[in-house]
Amino acid sequence: MAKVKVGVAGYGVIGQRLADGVALQEDMELVGVADVAPTLAIRALKEKGMPYKLYSAMPENQQLFDKLNIPIAGTLEDLVQNVDIMLDATSAGVGAKNKELYKRYGKKAVFQGGEKNSVADVFFHGYANYEQGLGQDFLKLTSCNTTGLIRAVDCIDRKVGVEKVAITIIRRVADPGDYHRGLTNALQVDKAPSHQAVDLMTIMPHIDATGILVHAPVTHGHIITVLAKTKQKISKETLLEYFRENARIRVVRLEDGFLGNASLFKYARDLGNPRGDMYEIAVWEESIVHSGDDIMFAINIPQESDVIPENIDAIRAALRMQNDRMEAVGLTNKYLGMRPNKGV
Amino acid sequence: MAKVKVGVAGYGVIGQRLADGVALQEDMELVGVADVAPTLAIRALKEKGMPYKLYSAMPENQQLFDKLNIPIAGTLEDLVQNVDIMLDATSAGVGAKNKELYKRYGKKAVFQGGEKNSVADVFFHGYANYEQGLGQDFLKLTSCNTTGLIRAVDCIDRKVGVEKVAITIIRRVADPGDYHRGLTNALQVDKAPSHQAVDLMTIMPHIDATGILVHAPVTHGHIITVLAKTKQKISKETLLEYFRENARIRVVRLEDGFLGNASLFKYARDLGNPRGDMYEIAVWEESIVHSGDDIMFAINIPQESDVIPENIDAIRAALRMQNDRMEAVGLTNKYLGMRPNKGV
Amino acid sequence: MAKVKVGVAGYGVIGQRLADGVALQEDMELVGVADVAPTLAIRALKEKGMPYKLYSAMPENQQLFDKLNIPIAGTLEDLVQNVDIMLDATSAGVGAKNKELYKRYGKKAVFQGGEKNSVADVFFHGYANYEQGLGQDFLKLTSCNTTGLIRAVDCIDRKVGVEKVAITIIRRVADPGDYHRGLTNALQVDKAPSHQAVDLMTIMPHIDATGILVHAPVTHGHIITVLAKTKQKISKETLLEYFRENARIRVVRLEDGFLGNASLFKYARDLGNPRGDMYEIAVWEESIVHSGDDIMFAINIPQESDVIPENIDAIRAALRMQNDRMEAVGLTNKYLGMRPNKGV
Amino acid sequence: MAKVKVGVAGYGVIGQRLADGVALQEDMELVGVADVAPTLAIRALKEKGMPYKLYSAMPENQQLFDKLNIPIAGTLEDLVQNVDIMLDATSAGVGAKNKELYKRYGKKAVFQGGEKNSVADVFFHGYANYEQGLGQDFLKLTSCNTTGLIRAVDCIDRKVGVEKVAITIIRRVADPGDYHRGLTNALQVDKAPSHQAVDLMTIMPHIDATGILVHAPVTHGHIITVLAKTKQKISKETLLEYFRENARIRVVRLEDGFLGNASLFKYARDLGNPRGDMYEIAVWEESIVHSGDDIMFAINIPQESDVIPENIDAIRAALRMQNDRMEAVGLTNKYLGMRPNKGV
Repeated sequence: MAKVKVGVAGYGVIGQRLADGVALQEDMELVGVADVAPTLAIRALKEKGMPYKLYSAMPENQQLFDKLNIPIAGTLEDLVQNVDIMLDATSAGVGAKNKELYKRYGKKAVFQGGEKNSVADVFFHGYANYEQGLGQDFLKLTSCNTTGLIRAVDCIDRKVGVEKVAITIIRRVADPGDYHRGLTNALQVDKAPSHQAVDLMTIMPHIDATGILVHAPVTHGHIITVLAKTKQKISKETLLEYFRENARIRVVRLEDGFLGNASLFKYARDLGNPRGDMYEIAVWEESIVHSGDDIMFAINIPQESDVIPENIDAIRAALRMQNDRMEAVGLTNKYLGMRPNKGV
Repeated sequence: MAKVKVGVAGYGVIGQRLADGVALQEDMELVGVADVAPTLAIRALKEKGMPYKLYSAMPENQQLFDKLNIPIAGTLEDLVQNVDIMLDATSAGVGAKNKELYKRYGKKAVFQGGEKNSVADVFFHGYANYEQGLGQDFLKLTSCNTTGLIRAVDCIDRKVGVEKVAITIIRRVADPGDYHRGLTNALQVDKAPSHQAVDLMTIMPHIDATGILVHAPVTHGHIITVLAKTKQKISKETLLEYFRENARIRVVRLEDGFLGNASLFKYARDLGNPRGDMYEIAVWEESIVHSGDDIMFAINIPQESDVIPENIDAIRAALRMQNDRMEAVGLTNKYLGMRPNKGV
Repeated sequence: MAKVKVGVAGYGVIGQRLADGVALQEDMELVGVADVAPTLAIRALKEKGMPYKLYSAMPENQQLFDKLNIPIAGTLEDLVQNVDIMLDATSAGVGAKNKELYKRYGKKAVFQGGEKNSVADVFFHGYANYEQGLGQDFLKLTSCNTTGLIRAVDCIDRKVGVEKVAITIIRRVADPGDYHRGLTNALQVDKAPSHQAVDLMTIMPHIDATGILVHAPVTHGHIITVLAKTKQKISKETLLEYFRENARIRVVRLEDGFLGNASLFKYARDLGNPRGDMYEIAVWEESIVHSGDDIMFAINIPQESDVIPENIDAIRAALRMQNDRMEAVGLTNKYLGMRPNKGV
Repeated sequence: MAKVKVGVAGYGVIGQRLADGVALQEDMELVGVADVAPTLAIRALKEKGMPYKLYSAMPENQQLFDKLNIPIAGTLEDLVQNVDIMLDATSAGVGAKNKELYKRYGKKAVFQGGEKNSVADVFFHGYANYEQGLGQDFLKLTSCNTTGLIRAVDCIDRKVGVEKVAITIIRRVADPGDYHRGLTNALQVDKAPSHQAVDLMTIMPHIDATGILVHAPVTHGHIITVLAKTKQKISKETLLEYFRENARIRVVRLEDGFLGNASLFKYARDLGNPRGDMYEIAVWEESIVHSGDDIMFAINIPQESDVIPENIDAIRAALRMQNDRMEAVGLTNKYLGMRPNKGV
């Protein structure tokens, strides 16, 4: 069977990882990546020997690439013509402009959380609403926090039903290597409710969600505390069982040395994961407590990489590569080298 | 009427502020403060001209003080004999030892949150259980987080009743100037439930409380998100009204520039408050949201100073200076320069 | 003798402290302060009961002040007409515009380090080139780092002559309470030479200065290492003696607990200094080492407050209040509550 | 030719990377690694499928490994018997104890910077004093800072001679994932001279070195400013040429986006380097300035990985695998995938 042809627009934090993730899928071909200028990520691509073809999203910058002997395979427009679907990981707002190009050539596209909802036909999450993405032209992924949060909530919801969630997001303000944003010795409170709670409801409209987001001056992994009102009370052990069945959720223990978000980053590096990334969110076993009949727990969101699997799921849905949700996410996981789902 | 005589053991972060707070009370006399060695705080006391008499809690260190020409008024034992009550703000565990000395001379004492509960006859909070402290010999205050949290919860509880709270504490890991503890670019998760939730229940046993604590690498102000299940649903405006009536709670707005914990620290400095301290906890108006019928909000805990008023309340209770709760806390507030309570 | 009338434009981090400092000078009268909007600092001024008269620098914002019942004494233009000299602590670039207003009314002004050099007739430092400021109309102060650095270098230069300095500045990136700039888990290198080294040479043209600046994610105090080539070799003890004679330099010791920039911030709070500020730079005794015949040491720059004394010196120079350098700085120091100079 | 057999004691931050580095050397065989307990790094080794054999350095912990189904190939004593040389990367002080074991079996060993100098026969640096390590039984490597610093200084010294260096080290206080040490919103000054300057002189006794070390709350890369007095003045371009010839020094530019230590960490991840590591130190082109005839520049030290090449060089020297310095370091570099040396 012919491989599905995929292009990636925007070779930044997310775009690089999307390219790597697509390249691992045995039923997909990464045609190339596009960017506007020789950023550090592009320089690294050059130093690695150009494993991916590079297309220029801003032809007037050609001489910048030439100066560095970085070969350009064509323009973004060329790339679009050569693919079945684009993963658009450009800066917020650029995706909406690129959409015109995708439409011109009748190509599907997947946008990231930073774009406005109106850019897409459907707001998509691989596990939670795969079916709604089937055959759609334009899909928008949820943000890193929302994607990870929905994984945990959907996992419980499918088992016992979730009525209500109240979350507190401790948001890392920058990625490692960021110099264009930052916060020093301060926590910053956002206007509530957090958009992540609101976004969860667009994917899971049967759940009442709200929450407060506080920015913290760290670079590794958001931490979210989730208080979930389930339709029937579940024990800590039952919750752990649910989470352990899910390939995109990793249960960890303080006792074993997973003390916080930075331990998970270190562990992913020690695992030899590409770029030291982790696709799974993590749940701390010792964080689980009951509040009356409700259950509360803390999860870690590896913000640079957790949306990669759901983006690849989106390709599968948009192109109807698999019609079955579990078959689709299972293939994504398998090719990404994740452990298999046990259920749901 | 003769002033009540108060001594302070331990002239650290809390002890210094207790001394300052007591010195402001017109019905109290600060007899002196005691410490073991010429720390930076003691050096600052010397540079200020010794506004408080200093007693030595470790006579073998006499030469250290002599070398710096710091006058010593006597030993801790001398101090104890000259007071009606001691505020013990020594390092965790030392208070339990000092208690023997206090008992020997038949003196009352107030211990801080770091001591074990067994050190005291009653676990005390000025607003929440003032009456239980009346006439007691040994009182233990709640920690800075718990003290502030109880202020907010008690304030609601007295109006409409609170059944349950679930909290997320984003804990600042160090105070400004601390070099003996720290955390760098990491969030750290504690085993749940947090002790603050458990401690709240010792003061307010009719409430079911739980929560998760995450340490963050900042020095100004813990932030706690509180989800409260009230006996009857209250509106955001009603909640704000309750908080505004309470002299120890300050309602602030993101819109006005109070963006997070550091804004409050800056504001206290700009107010000209001694040491740049703030006695009030703060609530962010824009953080208040409903989760079904429950209400959720974020508060700021100025960890260095928020327990000072409740410590002074404890003196009033232990010595039966006032038998009425509102009269007692009102006097404490007045002498500390805080605005008057409007109700409750 | 009539007091000199002073106005302050810009009531931010520096402006607030300038106002406080001028208000302490017995031979000066603070006519008022001006700002454009009800910032947190202005709200604090209101909460304190308006100890200083407030003038509006942006009359179209009148209703913002009215809404908060903040009394406005007039416009910035009114303020300018009522003073002998303005201290301009507005945002970088605004001072140049305000200068037109000052000229219109024939008033002198002192600008801060953020303005371009061309705004002023002379680049001024109280200790290093007081005489050059005498009678000038427009003076520009050096930045906080340069001001503190020059204090140390000038102190040595006047004794034994300094030929060359090479500095490394570890720059704190934000002030406590700042949310508009920041850096998270990163050090940032600036293009060398640092402007502070270049600026030093405008004040002390006989010295060859260069250096490298690295931004660090902290809020309390820049630290500068200085390698100075002196005309004759001096011992560590001699250097300490020089520094100890200077009222604006504080010699501290690691051994005493002054472990870094944050210890000095804490100490200033413990001293009860207004806003927890310190006017002095500090030198760590144990940092002093020789590199051949040259001498190297580390200093702390309290970035929010160290330029206040030199600003007040500038008033004295511009208005020829004192013609003698040591008399002028001595008065500034005295009224600010600093210890007396011993020499130089 | 038979491969040299190497064991690694201590599978922590350095030990893991030593194992990876040795495994890449085509003329070496990694017999196994040893550690005392199932740390996160050991758990990651297990999750990766045990690419390296694990030996137990604390047999009484056998059941801890058994519980996790981690296969143990034997004891540390077994490992020692099976190798030609041990790389000891245990916690400071443990190496001295392990030395007894190495001696018992007549095996050579290489110790890390944390051990006391007395543990070794020679203080070793691959580029600077390779010849002194030839045939030695016990070698001690310099610390990460000193190793990187010597690379830069030796590179200049071999060309034009260096007489004197004065350094300022901005030291990252923790590695990513560390929770056992940390610093929050503070810079900390060490007693001067820094041990790195002193250690440099043990390797390069003909140079006068001194310096000041300041700890900063970041996790990626120390930054050192170096002021070098060369025997003849060199231009910026000449210095860059020297550095570019050296395979273990990478010249980077602010202009290209390498803004600080975190950019280099990000770049190494983007390169796909194992664990996101970088073996090279970096020099910022725009940091180079002259101080009179002396030259000053800033370098980045990737503290987790920069000592790996020099450790492997030490194996080559101790076992006389190569007698020629440049041949030895060239092979190390080649097998590590670094670019070739151009000269020196």
